[in-house]
Amino acid sequence: MSDRINLSLDQVYDLALRALTHNGMAEDHAQAIADVITQGQRDECHSHGLYRVLVCVRSLRSGKIAPAARPTLTQPAPSIVKVDAHQGYSQLAFQTGLPALVEQARKQGVAALVIRNCFHFSALWPEVEAIARHGLVGMAMTPSHAWVAPEGGSKGVFGTNPLAFAWPRPNREEPFVFDFATSAIARGDIELHARQQQPIPLGWALDAEGAPTTDAHAALAGAMQTFGGHKGSALAAMIELLAGALIGDMTSAESLAFDDGVGATPCHGELLLAFDPQRFLGDDFEQSQQRAEQLFAAITDQGARLPSQRRFAARQRSKREGVWLSRSLVQDIKDLLA
Amino acid sequence: MSDRINLSLDQVYDLALRALTHNGMAEDHAQAIADVITQGQRDECHSHGLYRVLVCVRSLRSGKIAPAARPTLTQPAPSIVKVDAHQGYSQLAFQTGLPALVEQARKQGVAALVIRNCFHFSALWPEVEAIARHGLVGMAMTPSHAWVAPEGGSKGVFGTNPLAFAWPRPNREEPFVFDFATSAIARGDIELHARQQQPIPLGWALDAEGAPTTDAHAALAGAMQTFGGHKGSALAAMIELLAGALIGDMTSAESLAFDDGVGATPCHGELLLAFDPQRFLGDDFEQSQQRAEQLFAAITDQGARLPSQRRFAARQRSKREGVWLSRSLVQDIKDLLA
Repeated sequence: MSDRINLSLDQVYDLALRALTHNGMAEDHAQAIADVITQGQRDECHSHGLYRVLVCVRSLRSGKIAPAARPTLTQPAPSIVKVDAHQGYSQLAFQTGLPALVEQARKQGVAALVIRNCFHFSALWPEVEAIARHGLVGMAMTPSHAWVAPEGGSKGVFGTNPLAFAWPRPNREEPFVFDFATSAIARGDIELHARQQQPIPLGWALDAEGAPTTDAHAALAGAMQTFGGHKGSALAAMIELLAGALIGDMTSAESLAFDDGVGATPCHGELLLAFDPQRFLGDDFEQSQQRAEQLFAAITDQGARLPSQRRFAARQRSKREGVWLSRSLVQDIKDLLA
Repeated sequence: MSDRINLSLDQVYDLALRALTHNGMAEDHAQAIADVITQGQRDECHSHGLYRVLVCVRSLRSGKIAPAARPTLTQPAPSIVKVDAHQGYSQLAFQTGLPALVEQARKQGVAALVIRNCFHFSALWPEVEAIARHGLVGMAMTPSHAWVAPEGGSKGVFGTNPLAFAWPRPNREEPFVFDFATSAIARGDIELHARQQQPIPLGWALDAEGAPTTDAHAALAGAMQTFGGHKGSALAAMIELLAGALIGDMTSAESLAFDDGVGATPCHGELLLAFDPQRFLGDDFEQSQQRAEQLFAAITDQGARLPSQRRFAARQRSKREGVWLSRSLVQDIKDLLA
């Protein structure tokens, strides 16, 4: 018997949905989460795919997450849409806020969507891609847990603090999109090296004494590093400020303290921005779309890749052929239905 | 006779102002430029100090720059303020747009200032600091000239594309602020190494064949690299899109072509964003200010530096003691008054 199993995207969605609802997640939350998990699996971002169902259920069982919280929407200023997730997962809060964000961006030219008090585990590209599907330019950022040292320091202050961006492309299914952590690497990659007793490259992390280390265990006991030295460190700080202090939600240090060793999904806020090119450009809109396409061509014509190209290739493959999953992972999730 | 000369900040301003007006710059443009040059000299950013007067006058003489252009302000949407610089320098355009940006940010919560058709040479920190002095959070970005290759490529597509950010701090003269190029290093640093026949570190640039090089001359004939690998490259692309295509102005490739070998100050646009913390936070404003201060303390308490700390130390020193300049530079500028 093969150790891999093929599932259609509908089967992935259905399995995730049933495992979540069976374990107490409200139907609409489960739908929103299963949708994002299916997108992750489809794009072969395995750590954001079906595997996350296990983490979600573990987090649900920790009792910290409100499985049926009703997100509430307010609008404190014309260009600010605010959704309080009331300690539920972020996905339904995003779905709740998106139509208002789109409306205000079209009306005002620029608008912000603030999500507060949410538990957040997903990549940010599904959200900025959703913004781009409305013809808007999207940006998103969140703090996480304070595992990452500032440049020149040795103690965790920043989260892995991802930044995502999407630019809608005419006549293309997929936008120009990137989504990267401001840490040198994802924490999960260091954990994986530790489990496999493999060394990590220099530049990923410091040990507990603040010295650069290639020992993954020492790294987990120490602090991760940002990408790009002091510039990455400055960006990570910006994300703490914009997606923490500016929106009245926890910084990565507060979120880690709030978790109190449970190891649940981080609880914090998120900031998204949407820009309407039609409002910025008026009559110059078409010309500017071409300008962007020329930029992309100048990158790809010299053999360089656009961000997310591998992910989009996986997406097309998965739509045609379904996705391949380890039989043991699928079994672990089916066990949650028992 | 010492080869250095001490000038007060007023003397720096006055010298810059006279050299510019004497060479045909309109009074209000010259004032705005002299102000930014004085700030650069004060903070010991020598390449953005008095030295720039020489570059400005050379650019003026190239005939590309309109020395008396009247910036015009429009508001295509409630959260978008647009200033057309009409081929003049950027500083007066920024001064023209700032009050409207501040007003709209306070009214809408978030607002954007678009500057189009300007010649741009200054650092971005004076502008985001000016936004922060109004109690707003500021962000700014511009393209430049296409000297920087995308990650995985070997030909210039991006400019040095700086990103700046400022966060106002209560009871402090200076905000939290950073301003960095998304290239690994400033082009001027490579030029300096070439003049001094010194090797450059790996990671700064590629030669004309796309191979990593330590030869500064080969680097200038090839392409610069972004900081932080594919992440820095993605950021550089985002800045081309937001501060080029989104605002209907030239990308770095178009700006370089427009220059047509003259070597003048780059002509392009700029995007600035302002966020009003009071509108985002309401009653949580005070608590969130403390949250930000705790973040800064967590950085500095472990011996790491905040961005711009060296610059702020120079600022205090210059205010007390004036600035030291090379006698030959001052003479070169005085020669412009002949």
